[in-house]
Amino acid sequence: MADPAQITPSMISSPQPSASDPNSADPILKLSDPIEEVDQTTIIGLVASLALIVVAVWMGQSQANFFNLPSVFIVILGTLAVTAISYTSDELSEAMQVIKGSVIRLVPDLTEYANALMGVSVIAKKRGVLTVTNHNTILNKNEFLKQSMQLVADGFQPHDIEFFLTQEIQTSVEKHKAAASVLRRASEIAPGMGLIGTLVGLVQMLSQLNSPETIGPAMAVALLTTFYGAIMGTVVLAPLAAKVERNANEDMLLKNLIITGATSMARQENPRRLEILLNSLLPERLRIRYFD
Amino acid sequence: MADPAQITPSMISSPQPSASDPNSADPILKLSDPIEEVDQTTIIGLVASLALIVVAVWMGQSQANFFNLPSVFIVILGTLAVTAISYTSDELSEAMQVIKGSVIRLVPDLTEYANALMGVSVIAKKRGVLTVTNHNTILNKNEFLKQSMQLVADGFQPHDIEFFLTQEIQTSVEKHKAAASVLRRASEIAPGMGLIGTLVGLVQMLSQLNSPETIGPAMAVALLTTFYGAIMGTVVLAPLAAKVERNANEDMLLKNLIITGATSMARQENPRRLEILLNSLLPERLRIRYFD
Amino acid sequence: MADPAQITPSMISSPQPSASDPNSADPILKLSDPIEEVDQTTIIGLVASLALIVVAVWMGQSQANFFNLPSVFIVILGTLAVTAISYTSDELSEAMQVIKGSVIRLVPDLTEYANALMGVSVIAKKRGVLTVTNHNTILNKNEFLKQSMQLVADGFQPHDIEFFLTQEIQTSVEKHKAAASVLRRASEIAPGMGLIGTLVGLVQMLSQLNSPETIGPAMAVALLTTFYGAIMGTVVLAPLAAKVERNANEDMLLKNLIITGATSMARQENPRRLEILLNSLLPERLRIRYFD
Amino acid sequence: MADPAQITPSMISSPQPSASDPNSADPILKLSDPIEEVDQTTIIGLVASLALIVVAVWMGQSQANFFNLPSVFIVILGTLAVTAISYTSDELSEAMQVIKGSVIRLVPDLTEYANALMGVSVIAKKRGVLTVTNHNTILNKNEFLKQSMQLVADGFQPHDIEFFLTQEIQTSVEKHKAAASVLRRASEIAPGMGLIGTLVGLVQMLSQLNSPETIGPAMAVALLTTFYGAIMGTVVLAPLAAKVERNANEDMLLKNLIITGATSMARQENPRRLEILLNSLLPERLRIRYFD
Amino acid sequence: MADPAQITPSMISSPQPSASDPNSADPILKLSDPIEEVDQTTIIGLVASLALIVVAVWMGQSQANFFNLPSVFIVILGTLAVTAISYTSDELSEAMQVIKGSVIRLVPDLTEYANALMGVSVIAKKRGVLTVTNHNTILNKNEFLKQSMQLVADGFQPHDIEFFLTQEIQTSVEKHKAAASVLRRASEIAPGMGLIGTLVGLVQMLSQLNSPETIGPAMAVALLTTFYGAIMGTVVLAPLAAKVERNANEDMLLKNLIITGATSMARQENPRRLEILLNSLLPERLRIRYFD
Repeated sequence: MADPAQITPSMISSPQPSASDPNSADPILKLSDPIEEVDQTTIIGLVASLALIVVAVWMGQSQANFFNLPSVFIVILGTLAVTAISYTSDELSEAMQVIKGSVIRLVPDLTEYANALMGVSVIAKKRGVLTVTNHNTILNKNEFLKQSMQLVADGFQPHDIEFFLTQEIQTSVEKHKAAASVLRRASEIAPGMGLIGTLVGLVQMLSQLNSPETIGPAMAVALLTTFYGAIMGTVVLAPLAAKVERNANEDMLLKNLIITGATSMARQENPRRLEILLNSLLPERLRIRYFD
Repeated sequence: MADPAQITPSMISSPQPSASDPNSADPILKLSDPIEEVDQTTIIGLVASLALIVVAVWMGQSQANFFNLPSVFIVILGTLAVTAISYTSDELSEAMQVIKGSVIRLVPDLTEYANALMGVSVIAKKRGVLTVTNHNTILNKNEFLKQSMQLVADGFQPHDIEFFLTQEIQTSVEKHKAAASVLRRASEIAPGMGLIGTLVGLVQMLSQLNSPETIGPAMAVALLTTFYGAIMGTVVLAPLAAKVERNANEDMLLKNLIITGATSMARQENPRRLEILLNSLLPERLRIRYFD
Repeated sequence: MADPAQITPSMISSPQPSASDPNSADPILKLSDPIEEVDQTTIIGLVASLALIVVAVWMGQSQANFFNLPSVFIVILGTLAVTAISYTSDELSEAMQVIKGSVIRLVPDLTEYANALMGVSVIAKKRGVLTVTNHNTILNKNEFLKQSMQLVADGFQPHDIEFFLTQEIQTSVEKHKAAASVLRRASEIAPGMGLIGTLVGLVQMLSQLNSPETIGPAMAVALLTTFYGAIMGTVVLAPLAAKVERNANEDMLLKNLIITGATSMARQENPRRLEILLNSLLPERLRIRYFD
Repeated sequence: MADPAQITPSMISSPQPSASDPNSADPILKLSDPIEEVDQTTIIGLVASLALIVVAVWMGQSQANFFNLPSVFIVILGTLAVTAISYTSDELSEAMQVIKGSVIRLVPDLTEYANALMGVSVIAKKRGVLTVTNHNTILNKNEFLKQSMQLVADGFQPHDIEFFLTQEIQTSVEKHKAAASVLRRASEIAPGMGLIGTLVGLVQMLSQLNSPETIGPAMAVALLTTFYGAIMGTVVLAPLAAKVERNANEDMLLKNLIITGATSMARQENPRRLEILLNSLLPERLRIRYFD
Repeated sequence: MADPAQITPSMISSPQPSASDPNSADPILKLSDPIEEVDQTTIIGLVASLALIVVAVWMGQSQANFFNLPSVFIVILGTLAVTAISYTSDELSEAMQVIKGSVIRLVPDLTEYANALMGVSVIAKKRGVLTVTNHNTILNKNEFLKQSMQLVADGFQPHDIEFFLTQEIQTSVEKHKAAASVLRRASEIAPGMGLIGTLVGLVQMLSQLNSPETIGPAMAVALLTTFYGAIMGTVVLAPLAAKVERNANEDMLLKNLIITGATSMARQENPRRLEILLNSLLPERLRIRYFD
């Protein structure tokens, strides 16, 4: 892609005190601890939608019993069992952790990361590329950042660094996709189990039509598994699967920022070029203005 | 792709007064303010389709009550809550803005943009590439155009300019896609919430079949949530999602015109070549005839 | 891809009177006017399938009224209105033209085009590349062919010609895809409008169950919108969408033949090589045997 | 990809009597006639599944009439007519041939083809590349093989041969895909026509509910079109579409073997290298052991 | 991608006793026999989900007969027969083996494989690349590993080795995909056969409504085929198809590790580079720490 050695005229002639003057103070690097926050919309959305259904049930004109243990068993346990068929126990437990991490998650401040990468790059430009592993205060906050800076300091070629780290992202993306696919499959199975349960109820009801007054309640119970299956699939599992996929994208964006920074440092490029690249990756509201 | 230095014989020998004659008058550049217009088809389509349904209800032979508050709650609020599970609050508010912008939108005149790019290119060919940032009257109309011209004037390499700006488009496309995906998900959830509401009503009705004369009205009420869910999904949300995707494509076309112009200027190519390139991107009815 | 300068030994030594002998008569070029024909299968298929449904209705044992104005309104007008939400008026009118053009269409004779390209190539090889724009009898039959030959005569580089024209195809394909997507969306909306209309009828019927003898006819009317929606979606709109997509592919094949010819002439390749290339693009029954 | 001139040390030093010794006997080349066999699983599967449905109908407790002429007409003729809308008559007749060819098909022996290619390659290595067109006994069995060898003997460059033949495969794949898409569309239309027929029956039945004893039989007849549509779609058309797609893949594998052989001969590579390449394309049970 | 000859400064200067000191002891290579284990989650999931359905049937308030031989026949045999239409007998028997292998499967220890590749690489660096075929204890455990090392020892170029082996993976992936597609198609056909069976039952029931007390039981029997079809599709076939796809991915990861190792040895790269590459392919919990 870009020629590493290319320093354009305007870059060199423009005043860049922080980068070109070795006596200027080094920028101070910092990364806040990622905020371990419960993902508000996920929790609020889940609670609100389930509450709405409960309210709708309460407001109904009859005191129908909406809780039926065999129906709960066939839908919840059945969905779990059928989902388990397609995966190994390792994958299922790994998926559980990724799913937990999409509710209580560590939200990184992307702007702060971009600023930190700019600072490391400016210092590396001034005092040499071996300095990139000196910033323990920030490197200890992110394993991937530490590993990337180590590769830069070890003197690997820029295209090697890019290759190693892109491979690494790929592996991490696969892991998130696997977890999302567990949820996605479960969200497809739940309505199926609901249908199977309702068919069991319907066959039982239809085979003894002699007592007509029991038809209604028996069919109401049969429909409960369809009801549970629809809630499991539509309200709980499919939205969580979409959330896990979304978080994987956010994680990938952070890692792409770090790769862009690392390869730029390894190429010993002008930090101004890195700023443009980082900003072109960041959404508009998170962009940085490092110089001026 | 194309060799930047390639000026074909016929290009040079053909008479190009505006480009080759330094004494000829500079073309006058202008860009109208984008018309902030309410998107007619969207508004007319929405109003007309909802009106049709209301008329169909009115023309019915019975005075059934088609408004039921719990059903409205379970469908509208339920769809909102379940959609919120899969996103963060930032994304939801950003999506709201993009959606608003797909109803009341700024329609750029693509032909005018292509002509303006031709003008900038002709002047740059005549008076040097640094002139591209002088045209404040047009640059202030479009942030992306201003940024592209700045990169050209800063002397970046053509492939760097292409790389920076393509990355930028990617980020902007992601934002529109995210907004469209919020609507797309909501349009899938709405019928699901309708089904869940109808199941609640059916179970309640079936569990007290002793008063047969209430079956009909109770089932009518139960079907209302399916009715609301179908309207929300088919008539409102899915078409708006398609509209947002369409607008993202239009926005991308404008930005692609600007990238093509910027890289062509950075390569100091003959403006005639730029005209062919711009026209090959534009749909037939919007093509320009800058020379002759 | 292929090296432009590569003339293989066997090419040169094989006897090629028409191409290598400057005194041989020039091939006569001709292109018939494209036959403006009503696309038979489309018209026959549409008429036959609608006639079959009418016959099935007539053969029924009851004289049910299958025509209901509000149902027609809600399905046809509703589908139009909801489809309009997702597009602009420009797109809708452009789509109308493309759709009309897929019923009454200009069928090009691909074999004749391939032969004409061979002839132009043979003459260009003998009398120079500037002759390619002399063949007004054929160039005036096809705007894209004219434009391609102009680029060859203007002395553009082969890869530039390929780039310009491929871009052009892309824009033309987008236009056809947009028209097909209008129909595709409409074919998805029609059954949805049918369901909404049926729900309106069902709710009205169920809310006044006191007169049981009206249940049947009321439900029959309610089902009519589902019936209209199914016919609109399955029989009319989805097949037309598939047809428009198919025609876009045929149009693209013709344009690919022309691009292949134009780049081959620009590379001044041996016409025998062009013949192999054109034949590898053409389906077996349309292949040409220009030499021998 | 691979460097054509690369002959690795071990290749040269290893004993290769058949390839390096000009006095050794030429390998005998042969290709059996492809067995024109009725595809057993397709015929057995079709007959068995239709027989199963007939048996299930016979075993039923009632002597219901499962044959209804208007229903047969609306489903079979309707599916044909609606499918015809999306295609031209040429495409439909070509699709018919491809479909016929997926039931009674010519099964090529891939192992024999790979061995024949090895033999041609060994002789070409020993006696020169012009010998590849001498083997009429095998070349007349396969048009594509003949054409490929002709290109090799004509002295085209390896990358040109690959480009011509890959283009050719593309065109052939398009043809098979078109045939499969006709079946695929028909399999989607059949259930739709079934639904439309059932709606006709339901509306007729519901509009004259005065004779309750006819409701059952009328509804039974109405359901027959759904029944026919499900059989047409699920049992006949969709499986045949999948079969045509599968055969296209098999055909492509044979043609890829031939392309690999032709480019290897054109590069004048060591036949041992070709053996590894052919084996890496063949499924395990069909691999060849040409040397040793 | 990476330049094969590139040995970065830090690589050479860093102490690497095991790799650079020819007197150090060779690493001991070992590969355990792959554990032939029944895949627990698959068996437990299948048994548990079927048991749940049986329990749900038993807990029902009526003693309905849930076993109906014609329904079993039409669903199970029908699904088999319809699936067979789309494939050949070879493919079906191969698919059976792959499916069996996804229940009782050989689980390779990826960490052990990565360590073995490191060991082979370290010895090859010290004693020459021809040593890679000496390690019979490990090469006999895996056919693909043996074949890869043979290619390295034969002195093929790194890009040739990569090309041969990637082609090989492709063929193996196709085989697994074919097996998964058999199951995937069967899982789509099963509910279709269930619907067809239910339609047979419904038509029979509706055509003799004179004995109303038999309606219920007849409809119960009719619904049984839908019930069987839903279980076959949702609980058995679709999850097994997903499992086969998952196993194909795992198999591909192992083969990718081996390719990475083989090309690294053929390039005679520093083993430290190989370690980074292998770790970037492995999921986090399986990574190796070969040096230090």
